[in-house]
Amino acid sequence: MAPPPLRSDALRNRQRLLAAAREVFDEQGVTAPLDEIARRAGTGNATMYRHFANRRELALAVYADEVTSLCDHGLALLEAPDAGEALFTWLRAFMRHVATKRELATVENPDPGDAGSELFARWHAQMRGTVAALVERAQQVGAVRPDLDAVDLLLVTSGIAFTGADSGRAEHLLDLVRRGTGHQDGG
Amino acid sequence: MAPPPLRSDALRNRQRLLAAAREVFDEQGVTAPLDEIARRAGTGNATMYRHFANRRELALAVYADEVTSLCDHGLALLEAPDAGEALFTWLRAFMRHVATKRELATVENPDPGDAGSELFARWHAQMRGTVAALVERAQQVGAVRPDLDAVDLLLVTSGIAFTGADSGRAEHLLDLVRRGTGHQDGG
Repeated sequence: MAPPPLRSDALRNRQRLLAAAREVFDEQGVTAPLDEIARRAGTGNATMYRHFANRRELALAVYADEVTSLCDHGLALLEAPDAGEALFTWLRAFMRHVATKRELATVENPDPGDAGSELFARWHAQMRGTVAALVERAQQVGAVRPDLDAVDLLLVTSGIAFTGADSGRAEHLLDLVRRGTGHQDGG
Repeated sequence: MAPPPLRSDALRNRQRLLAAAREVFDEQGVTAPLDEIARRAGTGNATMYRHFANRRELALAVYADEVTSLCDHGLALLEAPDAGEALFTWLRAFMRHVATKRELATVENPDPGDAGSELFARWHAQMRGTVAALVERAQQVGAVRPDLDAVDLLLVTSGIAFTGADSGRAEHLLDLVRRGTGHQDGG
């Protein structure tokens, strides 16, 4: 049986806690003191623990929220007038996500050799679905090569985030990759 | 005063220890038992510790050796007939180096936020010098764009190695980047 829906004040608290957790994890890393999160959300620790039993649950909720935002952003970009620009706008957002949320993923999956948990597998599938739709649309208008593989593009973009380059440099590196995706440069 | 040159049997032992250390670190990671390295080199532990006082010295020697090989390989490739192919042959070797030797670097520089030790700074400068020479030669024959930045190329290549893609997939991703480097694809 599904849990009953949250009352509106509980929902508001949950949203505040998630927003505070995102901020605090961004600033201090995923090992930041949880008290600071409750303090910034303006709730007591007891309220925080009622919503999120521990650090892992909080970190996973922040991550899930971010994946949902990214996928919603992708969906909105499917309506943007320039399909090629829409694809790379999304890839820049994805790159920022990887650069800033990478540490969060270690809460669930501390072993880099591990293929990843079921949760991460589902999230990765969602992101692959999003980029595939954006690539397909860009291909339809000839903005990128017909044989461009969406997962290749996602992997190279993650790789750029992994270099730790600052965001300006990272976007410059993504432009280098973008040049290789054009349909005009032949076989 | 420089240390006296090693006698030929001492030199041979050093080379054997380095080759064994490379093998064992590749197979078992940089925390592998040092005894196994001495055993595989066919020397006693005492001989090993005479050459390399500790794990850090051994790991740094393996890394230094690898950087020297990479730079020598680059120098040889400056004589290869196809300057564009030579550049990407070297980048593939560099990518393998990053993928397999990344963990070794943590012995010297355990903090990923740290800009790196003096040793690593020198090694990175050597690799930047090597790729710059290969890019310049490829530019001279028009194999890559005149405004292609060698360090950008090195960074994106490291990023691909950081994704943990297997070597076939990683080479495929490097090909995607290569498409963006051609002089034929305009501004």
